[in-house]
Amino acid sequence: MNKVRLEILGLSASHTSHGSFALVLGEKHGNRRLPIIIGMFEAQAIALEIEKISSNRPMTHDLFKSFALKLGASINHIQISNLKEGVFFADIHIITAEGEEIVLDSRPSDAVAIGIRFNAPIYVFENIMEEAGIQVEELEQDEMDHIDDELEEEDDDELEIEDFEGIEDEEDEAEVADTTPVVSDSDSIATLSVDQLNSLLKKAIDNEDYMKAAEIRDEISKRG
Amino acid sequence: MNKVRLEILGLSASHTSHGSFALVLGEKHGNRRLPIIIGMFEAQAIALEIEKISSNRPMTHDLFKSFALKLGASINHIQISNLKEGVFFADIHIITAEGEEIVLDSRPSDAVAIGIRFNAPIYVFENIMEEAGIQVEELEQDEMDHIDDELEEEDDDELEIEDFEGIEDEEDEAEVADTTPVVSDSDSIATLSVDQLNSLLKKAIDNEDYMKAAEIRDEISKRG
Repeated sequence: MNKVRLEILGLSASHTSHGSFALVLGEKHGNRRLPIIIGMFEAQAIALEIEKISSNRPMTHDLFKSFALKLGASINHIQISNLKEGVFFADIHIITAEGEEIVLDSRPSDAVAIGIRFNAPIYVFENIMEEAGIQVEELEQDEMDHIDDELEEEDDDELEIEDFEGIEDEEDEAEVADTTPVVSDSDSIATLSVDQLNSLLKKAIDNEDYMKAAEIRDEISKRG
Repeated sequence: MNKVRLEILGLSASHTSHGSFALVLGEKHGNRRLPIIIGMFEAQAIALEIEKISSNRPMTHDLFKSFALKLGASINHIQISNLKEGVFFADIHIITAEGEEIVLDSRPSDAVAIGIRFNAPIYVFENIMEEAGIQVEELEQDEMDHIDDELEEEDDDELEIEDFEGIEDEEDEAEVADTTPVVSDSDSIATLSVDQLNSLLKKAIDNEDYMKAAEIRDEISKRG
């Protein structure tokens, strides 16, 4: 199956559901974006690493890293592997000290939070990108390069990372678009027609509100 | 150094600081208790395992477990290893497939959340128990046995686990007693004399408010 290389473009907080965030992934060599709704804790774990904020004590994902390092294992790559009923699945591909490959089934949020700690590349299967990817207007090539440079330099000024303070937590158990918190105030969305949803989706994308766009996209995909 | 075997007695939410919990550990063969203030996410990870609630998708600590299992590694035991300026430290002792021991520096919350997924015993050094342990009135031996049975049967009706819903998250980076959230409305505590603190501590223990007791205990230890 065709793989598409992704890079982390940013995290945006939900304006509709407290405690969830949109992890915005973008094609490294294209202009489609893949927003995935994740929980507050996982978003924080990703943001801390992007911003190179080191805490006094190891956080949960740091513990996973130190375990892997002590074993001489490394993360080869992260694969967004499936999308079922609005739930994204990921695989963490690990290479052991003996060169053996281990694959761990993971939520995308944990996979990215761990992968970023190893600078592991992130991939998604083309069919998932076709189903859930959001097309944005063509970026100027130099802007693309600019973003690449920013990421390579690990200078994240270009990344939209929102403040985590004062946000209520939502105990999401998977990257779902139809968990109560996300749907909670999207009842309006549920009542709209597909045509209405599509125009809302376009508006959300124009406003670069990827959180909203992701919710609408997943509502549309639920309609079949 | 002398080790004391601990068991998980419960989790209590903070009435004074949103998003933090007291993980209440108790001597398996004694009547001292060791409350440790931990964050909401880690408390949830412990509670989900105690209550044997399985989520559709692997949570972060489950990922650590599946990684260890795929490598044929197991958790030998958890050691509460140090207490510095009110911050508890723990070690996760792992045995690899080759029988080699690996020790991971961890926050106690992550260590317990992972250890409980392997039914690994939890220990604390006697000197830490002397410094931070809270003496409670002697429990009847049959009550102790009762609690043991409950734990062995993994029937947690006896465990005080509070509801996690609607609690604001606090991004604690370590099990500290002097993080802003914990201290936030403990300014009152900070202004009290050690004598006043000690009587408050006794009252908190009588009320079995281990969260409050832990905050007062740590305030007292900061004075010393």
